[in-house]
Amino acid sequence: MSTRLLPDLLRATRAHSLALAAPLSDEDAQLQSMPDASPAKWHLAHTTWFFETLVLQPHLPGYRVFDERWPRLFNSYYESLGPRHARPQRGLLSRPSLDEVKAYRRHVDAALADLLPAASAEARALIELGCHHEQQHQELLLTDILHAFSCNPLLPAYDAAPPAPAAPPAQAWLQHPGGIVEIGFDGAAGDGFAFDNEGPRHAALLAPFEISNRLVTCGEYADFIASGGYREPLLWLSDGWATVQAQGWQRPAYWLPDGSVFGLHGVQPLDPGAPVSQLSFYEACAFAEWAGARLPTEFEWEAACRLPGFHQAADQAWQWTRSSYAPYPGFKPAPGAVGEYNGKFMVGQQVLRGGSVATPAGHARPSYRNFFPPAARWQFSGVRLAR
Amino acid sequence: MSTRLLPDLLRATRAHSLALAAPLSDEDAQLQSMPDASPAKWHLAHTTWFFETLVLQPHLPGYRVFDERWPRLFNSYYESLGPRHARPQRGLLSRPSLDEVKAYRRHVDAALADLLPAASAEARALIELGCHHEQQHQELLLTDILHAFSCNPLLPAYDAAPPAPAAPPAQAWLQHPGGIVEIGFDGAAGDGFAFDNEGPRHAALLAPFEISNRLVTCGEYADFIASGGYREPLLWLSDGWATVQAQGWQRPAYWLPDGSVFGLHGVQPLDPGAPVSQLSFYEACAFAEWAGARLPTEFEWEAACRLPGFHQAADQAWQWTRSSYAPYPGFKPAPGAVGEYNGKFMVGQQVLRGGSVATPAGHARPSYRNFFPPAARWQFSGVRLAR
Amino acid sequence: MSTRLLPDLLRATRAHSLALAAPLSDEDAQLQSMPDASPAKWHLAHTTWFFETLVLQPHLPGYRVFDERWPRLFNSYYESLGPRHARPQRGLLSRPSLDEVKAYRRHVDAALADLLPAASAEARALIELGCHHEQQHQELLLTDILHAFSCNPLLPAYDAAPPAPAAPPAQAWLQHPGGIVEIGFDGAAGDGFAFDNEGPRHAALLAPFEISNRLVTCGEYADFIASGGYREPLLWLSDGWATVQAQGWQRPAYWLPDGSVFGLHGVQPLDPGAPVSQLSFYEACAFAEWAGARLPTEFEWEAACRLPGFHQAADQAWQWTRSSYAPYPGFKPAPGAVGEYNGKFMVGQQVLRGGSVATPAGHARPSYRNFFPPAARWQFSGVRLAR
Amino acid sequence: MSTRLLPDLLRATRAHSLALAAPLSDEDAQLQSMPDASPAKWHLAHTTWFFETLVLQPHLPGYRVFDERWPRLFNSYYESLGPRHARPQRGLLSRPSLDEVKAYRRHVDAALADLLPAASAEARALIELGCHHEQQHQELLLTDILHAFSCNPLLPAYDAAPPAPAAPPAQAWLQHPGGIVEIGFDGAAGDGFAFDNEGPRHAALLAPFEISNRLVTCGEYADFIASGGYREPLLWLSDGWATVQAQGWQRPAYWLPDGSVFGLHGVQPLDPGAPVSQLSFYEACAFAEWAGARLPTEFEWEAACRLPGFHQAADQAWQWTRSSYAPYPGFKPAPGAVGEYNGKFMVGQQVLRGGSVATPAGHARPSYRNFFPPAARWQFSGVRLAR
Repeated sequence: MSTRLLPDLLRATRAHSLALAAPLSDEDAQLQSMPDASPAKWHLAHTTWFFETLVLQPHLPGYRVFDERWPRLFNSYYESLGPRHARPQRGLLSRPSLDEVKAYRRHVDAALADLLPAASAEARALIELGCHHEQQHQELLLTDILHAFSCNPLLPAYDAAPPAPAAPPAQAWLQHPGGIVEIGFDGAAGDGFAFDNEGPRHAALLAPFEISNRLVTCGEYADFIASGGYREPLLWLSDGWATVQAQGWQRPAYWLPDGSVFGLHGVQPLDPGAPVSQLSFYEACAFAEWAGARLPTEFEWEAACRLPGFHQAADQAWQWTRSSYAPYPGFKPAPGAVGEYNGKFMVGQQVLRGGSVATPAGHARPSYRNFFPPAARWQFSGVRLAR
Repeated sequence: MSTRLLPDLLRATRAHSLALAAPLSDEDAQLQSMPDASPAKWHLAHTTWFFETLVLQPHLPGYRVFDERWPRLFNSYYESLGPRHARPQRGLLSRPSLDEVKAYRRHVDAALADLLPAASAEARALIELGCHHEQQHQELLLTDILHAFSCNPLLPAYDAAPPAPAAPPAQAWLQHPGGIVEIGFDGAAGDGFAFDNEGPRHAALLAPFEISNRLVTCGEYADFIASGGYREPLLWLSDGWATVQAQGWQRPAYWLPDGSVFGLHGVQPLDPGAPVSQLSFYEACAFAEWAGARLPTEFEWEAACRLPGFHQAADQAWQWTRSSYAPYPGFKPAPGAVGEYNGKFMVGQQVLRGGSVATPAGHARPSYRNFFPPAARWQFSGVRLAR
Repeated sequence: MSTRLLPDLLRATRAHSLALAAPLSDEDAQLQSMPDASPAKWHLAHTTWFFETLVLQPHLPGYRVFDERWPRLFNSYYESLGPRHARPQRGLLSRPSLDEVKAYRRHVDAALADLLPAASAEARALIELGCHHEQQHQELLLTDILHAFSCNPLLPAYDAAPPAPAAPPAQAWLQHPGGIVEIGFDGAAGDGFAFDNEGPRHAALLAPFEISNRLVTCGEYADFIASGGYREPLLWLSDGWATVQAQGWQRPAYWLPDGSVFGLHGVQPLDPGAPVSQLSFYEACAFAEWAGARLPTEFEWEAACRLPGFHQAADQAWQWTRSSYAPYPGFKPAPGAVGEYNGKFMVGQQVLRGGSVATPAGHARPSYRNFFPPAARWQFSGVRLAR
Repeated sequence: MSTRLLPDLLRATRAHSLALAAPLSDEDAQLQSMPDASPAKWHLAHTTWFFETLVLQPHLPGYRVFDERWPRLFNSYYESLGPRHARPQRGLLSRPSLDEVKAYRRHVDAALADLLPAASAEARALIELGCHHEQQHQELLLTDILHAFSCNPLLPAYDAAPPAPAAPPAQAWLQHPGGIVEIGFDGAAGDGFAFDNEGPRHAALLAPFEISNRLVTCGEYADFIASGGYREPLLWLSDGWATVQAQGWQRPAYWLPDGSVFGLHGVQPLDPGAPVSQLSFYEACAFAEWAGARLPTEFEWEAACRLPGFHQAADQAWQWTRSSYAPYPGFKPAPGAVGEYNGKFMVGQQVLRGGSVATPAGHARPSYRNFFPPAARWQFSGVRLAR
C-alpha cells in the first residue's frame, strides 16, 4: 500500500474497533459464550498484540513491550510465537481490564505512529496485514457478541436502532458459459491487498452453469421449514442429519420459536424479504436439495460475481460454497509466523464467498476466501443457489 | 430470632456481601470458571432473589417484583419456583449489570425494612433463613472468585494485604471415651438458628477414639508429596486414584510447581505451619492412610469439638469427615420450596465439619454440616486426623 | 472352613460357573455391553486367575502359570498385581477363546486339587475367599449377560423356561424397638465365612422403626409410574432427577414400552405381584418418597432381617439401603493384594442388603454388604420400605 | 455387465467373503473395536441384506425374507429403508450366530440363483452393484478385524504366513505436462462398472506437476519420526496437530514402540522398503511438508496413474490426496435408497486413490474414489508425493 494511504487505513481501522466496542459495557466485553468465540476485549487486545509482536518488536528499535506477561494471553494460535492461554478460557481474563486494554491500544498506536514515517517496505506490508487482520476480528467481534447475547434470556440488543427494511430483487438465474476462467487475486492489477490464501492466481475450467441473482430469503427458508425440511433425512448430508438430531435443530440459530428473529437489533419480526442468515453449511445444502438446486463452487462464485444483475454480492451474508478450503495450485505459506495465518486451517472447512452486513467496508473482494467448519452457524452466513 | 436482633443480622449480612464484592471490578464479578462455581454478581443477585421470592412476595402485601424477567435468571435449583437459567451459563449474564444488581439489592432491602416491624413469626423465620443462606453464599463468593482468579495466568490477588503468619500448636491426640452422645442441633437450648439438615437431634453410639488437636499442616502435606504420595495407588480410594490419573493431580489445587501457593492474598511462599487447604476428600483420605490414621466421622468430630485443646475448630479450613451426607433419623424436608434447601442433595457427597477463613463470623456451629462431592477442591477444605 | 468341607465348596463353585455359562454360545460369552459389565468368558477366566495368582503361585511349589501373557488380561483392579487390560476393552478379547479359557480352568482346578490335601491354613483361607469371590462373579455373569441381551433388538432369553408365578404376602409393617444392636459378622459364632467389609462387629444405636415385611411389587411400582412419578422433580434426589432427564428414564431398565418386562426368561408379561427389580437407588428413593416412606439404613435392615414375618430377605432382589458404603469402626484392609478387595471402593456407592434370584445358594448372609453406585440399574436391585 | 459374466462375479464375490472370514473364530467374527468398525459377522450379514432388500424383494416374485427381524439389524445407514440398530452396538449382536448368518447367506444365494437367469436389466445392474458393494466390505472386513486384533494385547495374527519381502523401485519423479484432462469413469468405453461418485466424466484443467513413481516407504517415514516430526507443530495442519496432542500420536497406528510393526501377519520387524501404511491424512500431509513436497490432488493422481513407471498404483496402499470428497460437476444421486450410497457422505472427508493389499482383485480402477475422514488411520492408507 502506498506510503500516503497506509496511515489513514491504520487510523481508521484502529478507530473502528473501538467504535464497535463502544455500545458494550465492561461486562459485555468480557463474554465468551463458546470455545469458538472470543470476548470483545480479547479481540481488542489480540489485534493489538499482532501489531506489537509482528511489527513493532522486529521493526521499531527500542520498542518496549507494554506488559511482558500479556503476549501469552493474547496470542491466538501462533505456535512459533510461544505458549498461549487456552482458547476456551479467554472469557476468564477479567484482568487486564477493558480500560487497561485500551491503554495497551494507545501505547501500540503511538509506537506505530512513530514507526510509520520511516517504515521499511516489509514493515509497511506487515502493518497493512495487521489492518486487514483487525478487520477480520471486527466482524468476529460482532458475531461473537451476538452469540453471547443470544445466550442471555434477556436477549439484549447490540444496536437498538430499527433494522433497515428488506426489499429483495425478484429472483432470476444468471447464465455463465463456463470455460477457462482466472481465479484468485490479481496482484498485477495494482497495489491492492489480498491474503496469501487468495493466490496464486491460476486458471480453472468450468462447465456452463446458472447462479441466482440474489440470496435465499427468510420467506423462502420458512417454506422449507414448513414443508418439513428439518425432519426429512434424505435432504441432508449424513453429517448434517446427525447434527440436526444431536443438537435438536429445528430452525436457524437465531430464529425464535414464536416466529421472531434475534439479531444485532435485538428481537424483531421475521422479515420474509431479508436474506436468511446464521445458517450452517449443512442447512444450506439441505435447503438447496429441497429447492432442486445446489450450492455454487467457489470458482463458479468468483467467475459469476461480476455478472450484471449479481445482487447482494458482499453486503448481506457470506455465501456457503460447495468447495472445501484447500490450497490453490502452487500455494506455499510464507516463512515464519505469518505463514501460520491461513495455510494450516486448510482441511475440514468450507469456503464462503462474498461478505456480510458485519464485514467492514473495503475489507472483502471477489477473490476473498472466508472459511468455517460445516456446522458453524453463528456467522452471517446464507445461501446463493446455483444449478 | 428475637425481633430485636433480626434487623441487625439482616443489615450486617446484606452489607457484608457488598463489602466482599468491593475489591472486584465489574469484570471480576462476572467470572464463572466452572459449572460448579458462580459469578460474584450472581451470588449478590441470587441471595436477593431468595428474599424477594420467599419472603417479600408471600409476606409483604403490595410488593412489586423488581423485574419480572429476573427470577428465572437468579433461581438456583428450586424446581418448585419455576424454570431456571442453566447453571453453567451464569457467567454469560453480562446483563443485568453489577450496578443494576446493586439497585435490585437496594429495592429488596427497602422492602424488607418495610416488612420487618410487623413481620409474622413465619416471615421472621424466613428472613433469618435468608441471612444464613446469604452467609453461605458469602463463603462461596470467595471460593468461586479465587478459583476464577486461579485460571488467569496473571494470578491476581483478591486481597493484597500480606497473610497472617501461622504458628500451629504442637500436634497431640485428644482422647474421647466414646459411648452414647447427642448429635445435632439442640433447639431446646435457646433460639439459635440451624439448618434443617442439622436435626433431628438424636443419640449415636461411638467407640472410643482419638482425634488430632489441630489440622494437618502444609509442611506435613509436603512430606506426603515428597514421599511419592501422588504416585502410590495403594494409598488411594479407587475413585480417587482414577481422578489423580485422569486430572494429572500432583499437588493441592493451588500449590504451584515452583513451591509457592496461590490464595486470597495472591501468590505467597508455602507456609509450612499453615493448615493445608483446597484438598479433595480423596487427597484427605490418601494423606490419612499414608499417616497411619484416618478421617473422623462427622459424629466423632461433633462429639470431640468441645474437648479442651481442640484447636482450629472453625477458623481455618473445613474438615473432611468419613461420613457421607445422609439424613439424620427422622429427618423430613419442610413442605414447599424451603424443603429443597438441603434434603435433595443427600447422596454422593461427603460431610465437612468446622469452618474456614472464608466463613462469615457467627455462621458455623458444632452441629453444622457442610457437604461437597469427594473430588471438589476449590473450597477451604483440609484434614484433621483421627485414629 | 474345615478341611473336610472346603473341597466340596471348591468343586461345587467351580462347576456352578460352568453351568451358568452353559446356555451361552461362544459369541454370547464374549459380549461386553458397557464398561461396568464384563463378558461371561472374562468372568470364567478372572475367577481362575484369582486362584492362580493368590493361591497357586504363592502356595503350590513348582506351579507353572498356564500362560505368562494372561495375567494382565484377567487381573481386574489389583494395583499390586501388575498392569491390566483396560476394563472397557474386555469385550475385545476374542483370544483366548472360550475353549482355551475352559482349559485354563481345568489346569487350575487340577493344581488346586493337588494343593488341597496339604494346604496350609492360610492357603485354605485364600481358597475359601476364592470360592466366595467366584460366587460374586456368578451373579455378575448373569446380570452382565442380561444387560448385553437387553441391547440386542431380538431380546434373547437366557433361560427359556417360564418364570415362576409370584404370589407376594400381604404387605405389613414389622416393628423394631431400636436400641443398641450388634452389627457385622459374628466370627465367634462359628467358622463361617465373611468378607472383610462385614467387620469389625460392633454396636450401633437405633431409634425405633418399622420395616415392610416384603419388597415393593411391580404392581405398586406401576402405580408410581402411572401417577407421574418420573415427571415430578420434587420426589427425586437432585442427582437422581438430573439422571432421569439426561437418560430419559421413564420406567425401570428392563420394562418395555408395551408393558412387558425383559428378564432372564426373555420377554414376559408384567407380573404385578413380583418384586420390582433392576431399579437404581435414585428410583428406589423416589418411590419411597412417593409412598410416604423411606429406605431403611443398612443397620436397620440387619437388625430387622431375623424378625418373624420378614419375607423375601435374600431370594428375590437386593435391597437398596439409605447407607453409603463406608468402613465400619476399626476396619483396616488386610495387607497385600487381598486388601484391595473391598476397602478401596468405600466412597460414592450405596449399600444393598439381602440377596437376589441370581445370588448363588449359600452366598449371602445377614451381615452381607453389597454395594453399587446410585445410578446402577442392571442388577437385581429392588426396594424394601421403612418408616 | 453381460448376462454371461454376472453369475461368475456373483459366485466369486460371495465365496470370497466366506474365504476371508474362514480364519476367524465365532468370537473373532463378533468383534467391534470402535464405532467406525464393524464385526466380520456383521459384514457377512449386511452384504447379504443388501441383496435381499435391494434385489430380491423388488425383483424376485414370491421371495420370502429370511427373518423379518433382521433387516433392522443389518441395514447400515439407509434412511429410506427403515430403522437401524445403532452402529456402535453392532458388536453386541451375539444373536444371530455366525452359523445363522451363513444360513442367511445360503438362503439369499439360492434366491439370487433363481432370479439370475431371467433377471431384468435393472435387477442385473443391482446385482452387479451388490457385488461391488460386497467387495468394499471385504476390504473393511480385513481392516476392521485388524483393528480389533490390535486392541488385544496378545496381538493375534490374521494370517500366520510370513509377509512378502518388499523391494521398492528407486524413487523418481514423473513429469506431467498439465493441461485439460478427462476425469471420471468413461462409461462409453465399455460395459465396466463404476460407482455413481466416479461421474459424470468431465474435463479438468491441471498445471504441470511432478508425481513420485512410488509410495513413501517405512524407512523414509522412520526418518521423519527420528527427526522429530511428531513434535514439530509447524509441519502439521492445525486439526492434525490438535489430534497428535489429544491422542498422543508418536508413530503410525500399528507401529510398536519396540520398532516392530503389527499387521495381517502379526508382529513383524519393520521392513524399511515396504510402503508405510495405516497413516491418517494429517500424518500424510505432515510428512509431505517435512519432505518439501505435497500430496497430489485426486485429479493429478488420476491423470498421472497411467504414466509409464507409475508403480504401486493399486496394490499396496490407498493414497491420500489433497482433495476433499465432493460431487463432480453435474453429479446427481440416483432416486431411492441407492442414491444414499455415496452422495450423502460428500463433506468432511478426503479422497484416497489407488487400492491396497486388502482390495479385492478387480475392484479398483483409475477413476475409483475412496474416502475417509482425515483422522482415520485403520485403513491401508499411505502416501505418494507430488510437487
